[in-house]
Amino acid sequence: MVTMAPKAAVLHLVLVPLLSLLLLLPFSSLALTQDFCVASLLLPDTPSGYPCKPKLAVTANDFYTDVLARPGPVFAPFNTSLASANVKQVPGMNGLGISATRVDILPGGVVPLHTHPEASEFIYVLNGTMLAGFISAETNVAYTKTLNKGDLYVFPQGLLHFQINLGDTTAVAINAYSSHNPGLQITDFALFANRLPADVVSKVTFITREEVERLKALFGQRQVPS
Amino acid sequence: MVTMAPKAAVLHLVLVPLLSLLLLLPFSSLALTQDFCVASLLLPDTPSGYPCKPKLAVTANDFYTDVLARPGPVFAPFNTSLASANVKQVPGMNGLGISATRVDILPGGVVPLHTHPEASEFIYVLNGTMLAGFISAETNVAYTKTLNKGDLYVFPQGLLHFQINLGDTTAVAINAYSSHNPGLQITDFALFANRLPADVVSKVTFITREEVERLKALFGQRQVPS
Amino acid sequence: MVTMAPKAAVLHLVLVPLLSLLLLLPFSSLALTQDFCVASLLLPDTPSGYPCKPKLAVTANDFYTDVLARPGPVFAPFNTSLASANVKQVPGMNGLGISATRVDILPGGVVPLHTHPEASEFIYVLNGTMLAGFISAETNVAYTKTLNKGDLYVFPQGLLHFQINLGDTTAVAINAYSSHNPGLQITDFALFANRLPADVVSKVTFITREEVERLKALFGQRQVPS
Amino acid sequence: MVTMAPKAAVLHLVLVPLLSLLLLLPFSSLALTQDFCVASLLLPDTPSGYPCKPKLAVTANDFYTDVLARPGPVFAPFNTSLASANVKQVPGMNGLGISATRVDILPGGVVPLHTHPEASEFIYVLNGTMLAGFISAETNVAYTKTLNKGDLYVFPQGLLHFQINLGDTTAVAINAYSSHNPGLQITDFALFANRLPADVVSKVTFITREEVERLKALFGQRQVPS
Amino acid sequence: MVTMAPKAAVLHLVLVPLLSLLLLLPFSSLALTQDFCVASLLLPDTPSGYPCKPKLAVTANDFYTDVLARPGPVFAPFNTSLASANVKQVPGMNGLGISATRVDILPGGVVPLHTHPEASEFIYVLNGTMLAGFISAETNVAYTKTLNKGDLYVFPQGLLHFQINLGDTTAVAINAYSSHNPGLQITDFALFANRLPADVVSKVTFITREEVERLKALFGQRQVPS
Amino acid sequence: MVTMAPKAAVLHLVLVPLLSLLLLLPFSSLALTQDFCVASLLLPDTPSGYPCKPKLAVTANDFYTDVLARPGPVFAPFNTSLASANVKQVPGMNGLGISATRVDILPGGVVPLHTHPEASEFIYVLNGTMLAGFISAETNVAYTKTLNKGDLYVFPQGLLHFQINLGDTTAVAINAYSSHNPGLQITDFALFANRLPADVVSKVTFITREEVERLKALFGQRQVPS
Repeated sequence: MVTMAPKAAVLHLVLVPLLSLLLLLPFSSLALTQDFCVASLLLPDTPSGYPCKPKLAVTANDFYTDVLARPGPVFAPFNTSLASANVKQVPGMNGLGISATRVDILPGGVVPLHTHPEASEFIYVLNGTMLAGFISAETNVAYTKTLNKGDLYVFPQGLLHFQINLGDTTAVAINAYSSHNPGLQITDFALFANRLPADVVSKVTFITREEVERLKALFGQRQVPS
Repeated sequence: MVTMAPKAAVLHLVLVPLLSLLLLLPFSSLALTQDFCVASLLLPDTPSGYPCKPKLAVTANDFYTDVLARPGPVFAPFNTSLASANVKQVPGMNGLGISATRVDILPGGVVPLHTHPEASEFIYVLNGTMLAGFISAETNVAYTKTLNKGDLYVFPQGLLHFQINLGDTTAVAINAYSSHNPGLQITDFALFANRLPADVVSKVTFITREEVERLKALFGQRQVPS
Repeated sequence: MVTMAPKAAVLHLVLVPLLSLLLLLPFSSLALTQDFCVASLLLPDTPSGYPCKPKLAVTANDFYTDVLARPGPVFAPFNTSLASANVKQVPGMNGLGISATRVDILPGGVVPLHTHPEASEFIYVLNGTMLAGFISAETNVAYTKTLNKGDLYVFPQGLLHFQINLGDTTAVAINAYSSHNPGLQITDFALFANRLPADVVSKVTFITREEVERLKALFGQRQVPS
Repeated sequence: MVTMAPKAAVLHLVLVPLLSLLLLLPFSSLALTQDFCVASLLLPDTPSGYPCKPKLAVTANDFYTDVLARPGPVFAPFNTSLASANVKQVPGMNGLGISATRVDILPGGVVPLHTHPEASEFIYVLNGTMLAGFISAETNVAYTKTLNKGDLYVFPQGLLHFQINLGDTTAVAINAYSSHNPGLQITDFALFANRLPADVVSKVTFITREEVERLKALFGQRQVPS
Repeated sequence: MVTMAPKAAVLHLVLVPLLSLLLLLPFSSLALTQDFCVASLLLPDTPSGYPCKPKLAVTANDFYTDVLARPGPVFAPFNTSLASANVKQVPGMNGLGISATRVDILPGGVVPLHTHPEASEFIYVLNGTMLAGFISAETNVAYTKTLNKGDLYVFPQGLLHFQINLGDTTAVAINAYSSHNPGLQITDFALFANRLPADVVSKVTFITREEVERLKALFGQRQVPS
Repeated sequence: MVTMAPKAAVLHLVLVPLLSLLLLLPFSSLALTQDFCVASLLLPDTPSGYPCKPKLAVTANDFYTDVLARPGPVFAPFNTSLASANVKQVPGMNGLGISATRVDILPGGVVPLHTHPEASEFIYVLNGTMLAGFISAETNVAYTKTLNKGDLYVFPQGLLHFQINLGDTTAVAINAYSSHNPGLQITDFALFANRLPADVVSKVTFITREEVERLKALFGQRQVPS
């Protein structure tokens, strides 16, 4: 038979009264509600999102960003820049099931094959012409469409998708996600920018070892932008 | 003691073999999976979304729309046009937890006070200058922000919010929602465009009966655009 | 390229062993499970609810309240009293998707137009006669019903609804919600008890500025009861 | 390699145009939204609830019932009556995560040990005095409380719980659930009113075979009231 | 009117800068994402799971266990051993909606009647022959099946179920659950290993008081294994 | 202004009474509940799963399969066989958030790099020795572990993962998923077994065109096994 978690209990029983004493405030004065839960990003995340910042500390800026007003940093060798507005840039998005990015695909550039493990996405084209596509997990059918300014296209959750600039000008899109933190797994980074030996990558992808080594040199050790 | 649902059972037992016979296909050949579920809009909706269209009938156009490339119809007296891209225009959005609208607020126009019962929202300003605000249900604090081109602002689920064009040009925004069908309850339509007697509306809002009657005449019998 | 969150990592790496040392208890003795999660209301809320109180500190009283045995405080000018039993009064409700209120509508009183951003609701009439109604977001149809003792009526999530005492005695109802923290946005408080200038409120509601000013004076600066 | 579901596809491709032709209505006139989804109870249920009835057919009565105004039928040998208001009695509850029952426990009666597989519950006492209790799955601690008129008590999802009338009058409670269809598994019915041989029941419960046989005779072949 | 939660706000406003100062790190360097959330088991649980351990501290071992390679401890009088691999043994399971156990049922042994309040389950037979069954909450029908090596059987969430070794060798199964923390309520422990008086248990189960007392002596004061 | 969905309404109004007449049964005799919802696989799927088969038609076999008792078909060139037990093989899994597969990795074989868009997974090794790994979307760290008989390893939802047989015998694992229909996107099939031109694949993966063409020839036109 197990015994009940004495450590966590004691920790809690010590911590809460201590904090109460420190603050000299009666427990019964609490009146929290949660019409929103602005992320307190310094506290540990949970499966449903970050703990909430107290309402007294919340301002309109917690729900605002201008980070998508300009292109983000360019990621070589994709010739594409990415700017993100998720819970980390906009703490008011915490728990709301929504976030955004902006991609600027330079002429000749691509948004390489990738997935968002946690979210579906739509893209809305602000400028230029691009080919957008995603691949069905069941049938391997690639659903592709040439998009122009004002067009919208949807990528279902977790499926591989990509965009290619088809024109001579920078193609720009605003993208929305069904999560405050959609995640991003760029297949090239996942395959070639990790520390797995080249022969392991070759074995699980059937790409030749030489090509894997070329791509490992191309992509180096990287993290996915957040 | 109740007896088990004989009618639904019989209905099912009749219908399924009938359809099977009709189609002369063995039951065991089924191989459906669901990496996406494009809405079959003619079948009845369910709490989680529409039944899925068969994969053989799905095309890239199910995930595409150009309806947001242009302003939608103008809604008097708001001086604002609204175009929608939700599950009804983009059946591929079904079940994906994402949808979009475009608002074009003419000079002097507003997006009037409203809620989305089913979704949180972000707005991304494509053009012009607007005041955006939402009101906390707990504290009645109005979180407002002046937004310019490239700015993003978030409205938490179910809270009253609005936008006002502050400039001399049409202000345009692309909006994303955390539902394939976010719903839209415009407070003026809900209060004044229904068939409730003016004194009932007055009684539950404390707006004078005269003002209620003026507003009922202004808004008439309306439906919310979908 | 971003670098990984060193601050949060260090914070965690410092905090956890420190607490472990303090408590002189081995990590491996933990045996928490979660057949329920009584709210630890002094810790910050999360999108899914409050962190759990340790089981050793839980008693039957965490699941109990008598606060609905009596009317709550009366809210002028509604002539209605409201008593709440949500996660803040009954910490055992945390994460269980259920909560309650009691309304006592004095003769001539109303439960004014409002929404619950986070929950559906049913009302069960304990005494008196009332008109209950909610308004469809899609069609503006008002679904209304006269209710007597023992009647039950349902309000779908996020839709505007109201109750009016139709009789000469206090009408009383017990209400249940599909959330441990349903939220409450009373339209009058949201519109007229905030600090938005009267002309902004007038502009987004089309109510005359004079009427807005009268209602601002009537409702003053308020918070929604929790 | 599998081939794609031809039968379901063909079925769909046949059925939808057929119905369209039959109705002589253009596909593009669809304008469904879902601020609520009243159950169409004759169509097959889904994991998220019943398909929606068309809005034109919805009335206020879909959200209403008076079935809790009176005691339901008495269930021997419990000396308790049960009346239910879930999606089957109130189709407007479909998908809303809320439902209700009323129990009238006669003097000496009990609500026997049971679970709701799909929901948490609160009880609100309308009359009399009862002992209410639930049992932790982790620690086997029974959290019990004597409740009087106006008291509320919460039972976490899926845990065994019970009520005993402690007084000389009928004890009455209104109960709310966090599901439109909470389910009800009365332990005695589950153990003794099924067709399992007595020795199987004895083997998995360690109750003597004689006692199992006595209880099988007492409870007979039964269904749980819905 | 309530006033806003000053204590929690102050606590937060004191704690966060303090920790920031302590760590001498700028707030803007945060770059957390959540492609997984390994449980920090010493921090308090939440309704959605434990707070996340920082990624720098995560290793492959957080996703690994060999605890199911051997039988767990035997539970008298069931003649069955249970080994668990849930969030407490495998912190990487946190929030992923999956966990496992292994049961070894000795000849003559049983997995006694029980429920998992938080999860559905499948069992996969590694060795031996067993009878597996669950009982419908609606109809009391017991769905039973004799299972041999390689067979799989499913138990729907929250329903009573059991397994009986039908052979002369130890029957072994690996079981999977649709939760990182499925919970386990063994009916015998819940009924007879708690501190409820025998006559209360008898009253809510209709088992004779003598039999209840015999079973209380048999099962003693116990906790459910975790 | 839109008009309400007349077609769907009429369809429903025609269909339901027709079926009712046909069956000559009163509407009020319905008594469905949903302690489980066995899939009616011939009816169209929904985002939450298939419509339910009537309870009268449900048998224990709906919850049972022996398809994992033997290896499934071998997939060249992986030297691995896959057998599936999801909602399509076990209709009782519908809506329960659980499913299973069995992989038999021949000596020298691999489970190639893939994702499950809809589910987390654990693997439990029945035989042999394998290397299992998954790759973080945020950091590109590959978390790998050598697993032997009785070991369990977890793959978080949506992340790329793989297994390699390290021994001289067939390595066998039983795998569980947190969905009744987890989906499976094998990167090689997605990239090389679709109809995208080789230069498009090369452009979005940075794999040379020659290598893409070699791999397209190797993998051909395929579907993912279901």
